[in-house]
Amino acid sequence: MTAFTTSTCPIPISDYPHVLLAHGGGGRLSHMLFEKMLRPTFANAALDMRHDGAVLDLAAAGGDGRLAFSTDSYVVRPLEFPGGDIGKLAIHGTINDLAMCGAQPLALSVALILEEGFPMESLWRVAQSLQHAAAAAGVPIATGDTKVVERGKGDGVYINTSGVGIIAHGVDVAPQRVQVGDRILLSGTIADHGIAVMSVREGLDFETTICSDTAALHTLVRAMLGAGGSDVHVMRDPTRGGVASALNEIAEAAQVGIQLVEANIPVRDEVRGACEILGFDPLYVANEGKCIAIVAPSAAAAVLAAMRAHPLGGEATDIGEVVADHAGRVYLRSRVGGQRVVDMLSGEQLPRIC
Amino acid sequence: MTAFTTSTCPIPISDYPHVLLAHGGGGRLSHMLFEKMLRPTFANAALDMRHDGAVLDLAAAGGDGRLAFSTDSYVVRPLEFPGGDIGKLAIHGTINDLAMCGAQPLALSVALILEEGFPMESLWRVAQSLQHAAAAAGVPIATGDTKVVERGKGDGVYINTSGVGIIAHGVDVAPQRVQVGDRILLSGTIADHGIAVMSVREGLDFETTICSDTAALHTLVRAMLGAGGSDVHVMRDPTRGGVASALNEIAEAAQVGIQLVEANIPVRDEVRGACEILGFDPLYVANEGKCIAIVAPSAAAAVLAAMRAHPLGGEATDIGEVVADHAGRVYLRSRVGGQRVVDMLSGEQLPRIC
Repeated sequence: MTAFTTSTCPIPISDYPHVLLAHGGGGRLSHMLFEKMLRPTFANAALDMRHDGAVLDLAAAGGDGRLAFSTDSYVVRPLEFPGGDIGKLAIHGTINDLAMCGAQPLALSVALILEEGFPMESLWRVAQSLQHAAAAAGVPIATGDTKVVERGKGDGVYINTSGVGIIAHGVDVAPQRVQVGDRILLSGTIADHGIAVMSVREGLDFETTICSDTAALHTLVRAMLGAGGSDVHVMRDPTRGGVASALNEIAEAAQVGIQLVEANIPVRDEVRGACEILGFDPLYVANEGKCIAIVAPSAAAAVLAAMRAHPLGGEATDIGEVVADHAGRVYLRSRVGGQRVVDMLSGEQLPRIC
Repeated sequence: MTAFTTSTCPIPISDYPHVLLAHGGGGRLSHMLFEKMLRPTFANAALDMRHDGAVLDLAAAGGDGRLAFSTDSYVVRPLEFPGGDIGKLAIHGTINDLAMCGAQPLALSVALILEEGFPMESLWRVAQSLQHAAAAAGVPIATGDTKVVERGKGDGVYINTSGVGIIAHGVDVAPQRVQVGDRILLSGTIADHGIAVMSVREGLDFETTICSDTAALHTLVRAMLGAGGSDVHVMRDPTRGGVASALNEIAEAAQVGIQLVEANIPVRDEVRGACEILGFDPLYVANEGKCIAIVAPSAAAAVLAAMRAHPLGGEATDIGEVVADHAGRVYLRSRVGGQRVVDMLSGEQLPRIC
């Protein structure tokens, strides 16, 4: 920061003098931080694709084919929750980001930021969980790093995983490929992960334990691309900010409207009940094992059939379509027939959910 | 952590019930954590290479060529110091890890873990520094992630960078390639970075400001590989734990002895003075813009000449050789003629230096 002139911060300092939790929440403030500060500053073709990861052409480097490259840090609390833990989440999350670029994962990295005093046994559990999830997904943890910060400067363990994957010939997924008339497919029930984490955090006791849906989606995606090929226009895993934020990002990037049918969006009864108690709209709650695909109408039936034939897509449904009206916005036709805007999440709904 | 049986932690809990700062310091405890827990748990061919990054064969994935893949988190304090800052360090460090695998970098990721309340202006400075360093090195920041943790659960900003690079045909660097008789080349003065950071942290005021050597080494490495080709057997950037730890790791992995000549290892006078005041041995102090190469004797002169012709290698020297005796150990012939073992760093010398 010494060798150049500091220009004016593009985030209005008068409104946001400090970083807020919501800047990491996956909603409007996260989006503003990325779109106003980070994307213009780091400007390059890969970032401009606005994928969950970068797509790199190896030809430019004298190689062959296309590589997907993605990174995510995991700060979820508590470290263990029904259906998963931080290790599983860290492996699945980065595999899923690669899969959403249309890639099959090749290798992962694991970087740990540990707080001095973190129990060694807990670290051992985290390490085993990471390996267990990676081995189950068939993806090696090929490189890593460990840093330790003083007591009080961290929170036990933070994990970054990054990953690389190979994109097969003929696969071409990007928000820019979305067309009016495309169908919007969702691989299953929504809001399970966020509610599972919040339930333990808030000490809520439901009749049925709500489990996180955390899962590695690369084999589901392989089946979908096998069925739909280049008719699969874009894919996204609706994590922080939920289905609503993921679709808003696509609508904005592709400059199309998105029309959803509420009755077609599957939500478990117990999750719906918990959402009502906690005051959350399931459309905004994080998922960690679900995939949205926007697909040419001619291929939608075949892709949906491939999803339903896969263990992670048994409840897949068609939840709506891409429309020409209202470019950049998402609309929902409610069960009672009304129509409402589904905006990007404002403020922080669920801190440290992943 | 729910779906498998937890086996016994391989780190003796009675000795180390909790994570210590030294587990991240790059010395003996870091090494034990990696070798006893993480490497066996994550076991795979890429990790077993014990590189600064993974080397992935794209042929296995239907591609062509070899990819380097590396990750590091940066937790340095203060965020700015003479000669650099956390942003520069995060870009240079991962570029250098790729370069030490013999790769030319293709793209980087940047993942931020921010603490609630971190000044937005400081974040802007960090973002600009990251971009400035990446642009100067000619490597795009192609993907990223931002998480925010509650006040008191972080320390302003932690940065993870990961990177991918392409390894040219004919390049083959790995500790296992080291041969008895190989020369050990060092690209310049040691201990600058660690002392620069410690000086500001301890409020020490020297006559001359000691500046970090932080620099991206990929063009230096390109020149070295151009001159030495496959006669360059292994390269390492001696960061945490310094030259001593880097060479101990190579000696152990290659099961050879390493014999250094103290008089040939360049240390700036002011750095040597600061080391004496602070009680540090410069061999153990971190560098962020230096490279060690172990090279076949027939190619050593050509590689050294290529290093000296590069702006980052003007003070490159031959500091010793690989020997058959004392496999796994590093020895130093001192200025006064004595011989001493240069062991791996014990305990934490310089916390949060990178």
